Amino acid sequence: MASAGETQAAELEGRFREGDIRALARALTLVESGHPLGQELLKRLRGQGRAKVVGVTGSPGAGKSTLTDRLIVEARQRGEKVGVLAVDPSSPFTGGAILGDRIRMMRHHQDPGVYIRSLASRGALGGLAGATVAALALLEAFGFDRIFVETVGVGQSEVDIARVADTTLLVLTPAAGDAVQAFKAGVMEIADLFAVNKFDLPGGDRIIQELKSALDLSPPRPGGWRPPIFPTVAATGEGVEALFEGLEAHHQHLLGHGLLEAHRLERARFEVESVIQEWGRKKTHKAGDLVARVARGELSPEEAARRLLRPEAQEGPA
Amino acid sequence: MASAGETQAAELEGRFREGDIRALARALTLVESGHPLGQELLKRLRGQGRAKVVGVTGSPGAGKSTLTDRLIVEARQRGEKVGVLAVDPSSPFTGGAILGDRIRMMRHHQDPGVYIRSLASRGALGGLAGATVAALALLEAFGFDRIFVETVGVGQSEVDIARVADTTLLVLTPAAGDAVQAFKAGVMEIADLFAVNKFDLPGGDRIIQELKSALDLSPPRPGGWRPPIFPTVAATGEGVEALFEGLEAHHQHLLGHGLLEAHRLERARFEVESVIQEWGRKKTHKAGDLVARVARGELSPEEAARRLLRPEAQEGPA
Repeated sequence: MASAGETQAAELEGRFREGDIRALARALTLVESGHPLGQELLKRLRGQGRAKVVGVTGSPGAGKSTLTDRLIVEARQRGEKVGVLAVDPSSPFTGGAILGDRIRMMRHHQDPGVYIRSLASRGALGGLAGATVAALALLEAFGFDRIFVETVGVGQSEVDIARVADTTLLVLTPAAGDAVQAFKAGVMEIADLFAVNKFDLPGGDRIIQELKSALDLSPPRPGGWRPPIFPTVAATGEGVEALFEGLEAHHQHLLGHGLLEAHRLERARFEVESVIQEWGRKKTHKAGDLVARVARGELSPEEAARRLLRPEAQEGPA
Repeated sequence: MASAGETQAAELEGRFREGDIRALARALTLVESGHPLGQELLKRLRGQGRAKVVGVTGSPGAGKSTLTDRLIVEARQRGEKVGVLAVDPSSPFTGGAILGDRIRMMRHHQDPGVYIRSLASRGALGGLAGATVAALALLEAFGFDRIFVETVGVGQSEVDIARVADTTLLVLTPAAGDAVQAFKAGVMEIADLFAVNKFDLPGGDRIIQELKSALDLSPPRPGGWRPPIFPTVAATGEGVEALFEGLEAHHQHLLGHGLLEAHRLERARFEVESVIQEWGRKKTHKAGDLVARVARGELSPEEAARRLLRPEAQEGPA
C-alpha cells in the first residue's frame, strides 16, 4: 500500500505531466520550501525534458529584466514555450530582497506559453541556492523549450550561474564603470555572450572596443567559441533579435562540438556541492558547543566538521 | 617515542614561540598548502594570542592597499605589532591573480614590527578560503596586536570578511558608482566603518550624503553602533588618523558591549562551514560516476551527497 505522501506525490505528478500549470506552481513551492513532498516529486520528474537554459546576469540596474522580457517575445515568435526563473539574492543579514523592475515581465501573464517565477536565494550567502537548480529541473520536466535564469548578479551568483546554465549572457551598460568592474572581477570569463544594454547612452562604442581588446587577451574557449558582443536598447527592443540569434548560435555551437553534456555534468556537480554546503551550514548553526570549542582553540575546525558529518548526523538537513 | 612529524612540529613550534619570523613564514606556507605538518602546528597554536582583527574591503581600485599601508603607520606609531593578510581572489577559471599596487606596502619590509603576507583564495570560488582563517589564527598566535585582512572585494569575499573580522572597513571612492553598487548589493550592512577614499576627486560630499541617507534607513546595529564615515586621501595620508581612531572606537564598542565573543564564534562557525564546503567540493570532483548519475536523473543530489559523506569517505579532503 502506498503511503499518504506517495499518493499525494503521484496525484501531483499526474497533473504535472498533463501540463497543469498550477501543479507546476505547487511543485515549485514545495521544492523551494524544502518540503519532503517536493523531494519525492523531484525524484519522479528529474532528468526529464530538455530545455535550452540561458543564464542572464550583470550588475544591478543593467536592465536584465527588461532585456529578458524582450527575449521572451523573440522566443514566443519562434513558437517556443518559455520558463523564467528570477533569482533575488536576499541579503544574508536582513532577508530583504531587491525587487527591481521585474513587474514589466507580468505582461506575459496572460500567455500560457510563458511561466515566470521569482525565487529567493536564501541560505546561499550571495550565491545561487541548490533550490534554484531543483526548480530548474522541474521547469525542464514540465517541457519548456527555453528557460531563462536571471540572477541579480553580484559576485558569487555570477560564477554560479555559469555552472548551471548552458549559455551565459552578461549584460553590461555604457555607464557606471560596468565593464571595468567586470574586467577586474574576472567575470569576463564566465560570459558566452555580451549585451551592451542601454546602448543609447554615451560611451557604448568605447565599451565595445574595451570588451574586444579584453577578449583578444582572454584564453580560448572550448570549441574555439569567441563571445560575440551585442549592442541593445532593451527599452525599445533595438538589437534584441540579433542577440536572440546569438543565443541560438551558441546553443548550436555546444551541440556541434558535443559540449552540452559537459554543461549538464557541471550543473549536477554544482547541485551536489550545494547540498553538502547547505548541510554543513545547517549543522554548524545547530552545533553551538562544538563551535565554541573551536573558537577557544580546543578543537580544530576539521575535527568539528568530522563530528558534524558522523553517520548519525547524516540524515540530511532535517 | 614521538614520530618524525611530531618532532618537526615541536621544533617549528619552539622557534615560532620564540618569535622567529621565518618559523611564522614556514608555518603559513605549510597551512596554505594543506600540509599535515601545518595542521599539527595549528592544533598546537590555535586559540592563542588576541589581536584586533580589521577587515578591509571594497571594489577593485578603491585604494585599499594604499589605505592599509597608511593604517599600518598609524598602528606602528602607537607601538602595535602589525600583521597583514592580503587575499587575492584568483579567478576560478584561470587561476590568475589580481596583483594591484600591493608593492607599496613593501616599504615596511625593514620593520620587524610589521609582517605582510599575500594569500591566494584558491578553491573558495570567489569567497574567502578556510586557509585564510587558519593563517589568521597563526598570526594571532604569533602575538600581533593588530591584523589587517585585505580582500579585493567583490561579492562573496566581502560577506565572508565580515564573518571573520572583528571590525569591517568598507572602502569606497567618489568615482565609478561605487556607492550605488554597494547599496544595491547589500554590502552596506556588513560595514562597521566607511572610508570614502580618493576624496580629492569630485563627488565626495555627495557620496557621504548618500551614505548617511542610506544609513538612516538601515536596521540598527548591535549595541546601537552607528557606522561612521571617514573622508580619506590614502595617497597623502589625509584623514587616516581619524579613520584609525574610528577603528579603535569600534573595538572599544565591541568590548564595552560584550560583542567581541560573538564575533569569535562567528569566525569559528565560518571555519567549520568552510571545511565542510571544501570537502564537499573535493569529493564531488572525484566522483565522476555519481555526478553523471545525477545529471541523468537516476540519483538525487541529496542521495549523491549522502554517499559522498559516508564514514569511509570521511577521512577529510585527502
